[in-house]
Amino acid sequence: MSCSRSEVELEVLERLKPTSLQLRVLRRFYELLRGMLVDCLSGRFPDVEVEAHGSFAKGTILSDRWEVDIFVLFNGVTRDWVRRESLRVLEECIRPLPYTVKYAEHPYLTVNMMGLKAEVVPAVKVEKPGSGGLGVERTPFHTRYVKAKLEERPCLADDVLLLKSFMEGMGVYGAETGIGGFSGYLAELLVIHYGGFRETLMESSKWRPQVYIDPEGVGNEAKLRSKYRDSPIIVVDPVDPDRNAAASVTKEKLALFILASNLYLRSPHPGYFHITGSGGVEASGPALMVVCRGDYIREPEESILGKLRRVALLISSTLRDRGFRVTWFSYASDFVERAVALVGLESLGLPELEYRRGLRPWDDIEGAVRFLLKRFDEGGVVWVNEEGFLDGIRHRPYRWARRVVEEMLGRAAEVLDASSCEVLECRDGAECVRVSGLGRGSFVGGPYAWMRLAYNLLKHS
Amino acid sequence: MSCSRSEVELEVLERLKPTSLQLRVLRRFYELLRGMLVDCLSGRFPDVEVEAHGSFAKGTILSDRWEVDIFVLFNGVTRDWVRRESLRVLEECIRPLPYTVKYAEHPYLTVNMMGLKAEVVPAVKVEKPGSGGLGVERTPFHTRYVKAKLEERPCLADDVLLLKSFMEGMGVYGAETGIGGFSGYLAELLVIHYGGFRETLMESSKWRPQVYIDPEGVGNEAKLRSKYRDSPIIVVDPVDPDRNAAASVTKEKLALFILASNLYLRSPHPGYFHITGSGGVEASGPALMVVCRGDYIREPEESILGKLRRVALLISSTLRDRGFRVTWFSYASDFVERAVALVGLESLGLPELEYRRGLRPWDDIEGAVRFLLKRFDEGGVVWVNEEGFLDGIRHRPYRWARRVVEEMLGRAAEVLDASSCEVLECRDGAECVRVSGLGRGSFVGGPYAWMRLAYNLLKHS
Repeated sequence: MSCSRSEVELEVLERLKPTSLQLRVLRRFYELLRGMLVDCLSGRFPDVEVEAHGSFAKGTILSDRWEVDIFVLFNGVTRDWVRRESLRVLEECIRPLPYTVKYAEHPYLTVNMMGLKAEVVPAVKVEKPGSGGLGVERTPFHTRYVKAKLEERPCLADDVLLLKSFMEGMGVYGAETGIGGFSGYLAELLVIHYGGFRETLMESSKWRPQVYIDPEGVGNEAKLRSKYRDSPIIVVDPVDPDRNAAASVTKEKLALFILASNLYLRSPHPGYFHITGSGGVEASGPALMVVCRGDYIREPEESILGKLRRVALLISSTLRDRGFRVTWFSYASDFVERAVALVGLESLGLPELEYRRGLRPWDDIEGAVRFLLKRFDEGGVVWVNEEGFLDGIRHRPYRWARRVVEEMLGRAAEVLDASSCEVLECRDGAECVRVSGLGRGSFVGGPYAWMRLAYNLLKHS
Repeated sequence: MSCSRSEVELEVLERLKPTSLQLRVLRRFYELLRGMLVDCLSGRFPDVEVEAHGSFAKGTILSDRWEVDIFVLFNGVTRDWVRRESLRVLEECIRPLPYTVKYAEHPYLTVNMMGLKAEVVPAVKVEKPGSGGLGVERTPFHTRYVKAKLEERPCLADDVLLLKSFMEGMGVYGAETGIGGFSGYLAELLVIHYGGFRETLMESSKWRPQVYIDPEGVGNEAKLRSKYRDSPIIVVDPVDPDRNAAASVTKEKLALFILASNLYLRSPHPGYFHITGSGGVEASGPALMVVCRGDYIREPEESILGKLRRVALLISSTLRDRGFRVTWFSYASDFVERAVALVGLESLGLPELEYRRGLRPWDDIEGAVRFLLKRFDEGGVVWVNEEGFLDGIRHRPYRWARRVVEEMLGRAAEVLDASSCEVLECRDGAECVRVSGLGRGSFVGGPYAWMRLAYNLLKHS
């Protein structure tokens, strides 16, 4: 089998494709866990099925991911039972291994062993996916659809690797609420639909919201556009035509992907792929960092990132209300005990005096008199401008961004369920990233380093 | 004769009314000049008329004004002759006295002697005022109208003094282009129309643009509203029904007057009148001052102030374009050799970095790529915000207001016909006013000191 590849793609693929050793190790790990679960469960649940899903099962796993998704499909139980009782059953089976319980839409276990990771997910086995069910019930159908398609066109498996790595490199990979990007399944759908990695970029470079893609021609366009009217992109799920497989994608991530597609096509380079390690945030300019500490081990990563996003948005809008010019924001967590939000600013302080727009005496004389009294009360003065507005200046109540954020630390701690939060001022955002102790690659949002790469490539081309 | 007066008005009038000595001195001065002119002209121009006009002639002169307007009305000459030749004739007659030639709509002489000032204005004697003529041709008709009205109701002469002094105190007195306020004639018209000083304030406190007042009911409202559609106030000239006697009043001065009327009526106080000397600008906050030197003796004051206003507006808008927050502006001249413009700012410097709003990749990908290249060229970075806009920061090309203004000094010097201009930075505007060497009372525009007076009065009432 020979697939048409550019040099850059070949170079990247060499590093992206898992080695046969990696695949053997993962298979052993999977079989170990599967064996434990089957042995333990088959007595009580005769027709339980334990299956591998996710990238590992589909043959689209990246070489730096050492993880398998294991689904335990129960027959003839209720969703409620899965939500409330399945965890206890699975815990009994897994107990000899080190595991953590996490709570998303429903509980699941993660097992970590020597760098290997497995998610053990309980679900009801259903005949066909559809509304009302839990998201995980669809996973087996996704696996089957993608596997079938890739068997038809084996070259596409590598294209999926390329697209996932490109998306990860660009900061748009991950359907979690705190990321708002493209899921692995969505990347697979796009590659299958457009017929390759480069083919996908050539199309996505021309996308304009609301993008509508229906790979199998099974969706009701009008209905979907109305149901997902806030989504900038709709990709009809081939296994569930009422569902938008791209519902997670925000305007921000779509814009990033469209921009990145254009830039890559103008001058392809391995640096656009996550595997080269040139990714991450390039925090630049003055910034404030909120560092919170809490117990995050039991919380799904997506939940922590989602809360961090809310905190970052809250800080940004409060600072804007107080007259600060907020530039970008970014956030990250070690998913153990630290969660940080970083907000970029034009400056950490504002002038002592603040201009206040007033009103025209003939529009509202009572208001104008109150305005005058207020400005002098605040140590300012007033005047009338060319348009007849009584304007004024006052001593600014909030001169320092740090003070503004300090006053809202309580709310940040509440949102993040943190035991403590503190604020740090940085003359340059990069300094904050260093101090945070979290890799710049783990930050979501903000100025991405690949944008400078694109600049350098275009400048010298 | 007894006129109803409040205590504040009586107290102010005591200082406002010219003494009999002052009136005697001015009359002597007027008669001296009149005698010289009549003797000198009567040979060549048998029916020339030399008359006093202005406040002195109408009996509405303020006690601190030692000036007379002398009109030389030529019969049977052309306007062109007045414009080109009359000056030479008048100069011959006046030569033994120290005089200066000034050029407004047409040339005139000013004579300064021991603190006394006379303007000697040549004009064509016309049967009735109307369009096409020079402004000064209307003056004799204004004098006659006001004198007749004040003879009917003698109390009103003091009301005129009060209103003029109030307007001067509020910074709205003067129809010159550089001031944009109320002329003496307009103050007289308002007092005559509303029947007094307080009566005028009670009405003006309720004005809403476009104000329309027709004291004699002679105007065509629709026509006037259309002809003067940019004027916030129309007062039909009783002696020339096609003319708006308030055409000089800007939105700014109208708003100031409306505000001041309201504040005075809430708590009357002598401090609102110019004679108490509490007036002038209270320049507050950081400011830049442009000081220009030139030969301004021969230029009418209104022309210098008009040019200064243009310079102040030019500086303000350029600074705003560069990202500075301009607050107020103010200007003044000694009308001899110095002209200064003062511009207030939130701060004299701006942050090193500047936020730049970008665009959405899907709206204009070429523009987005250019934006990215430009920001990195300028030492900045880019990112995509929540709405999908590619935003950026750059190193600000203009961090210091002083630098921005220095670069436009050439244009300022040109407008002001100055030999040199320089910029001064002040942490506080009041410092600039001190350094300027011009009294704070001579500044036009900006935060007026009477606003603080109003604040103090209202706070303690």
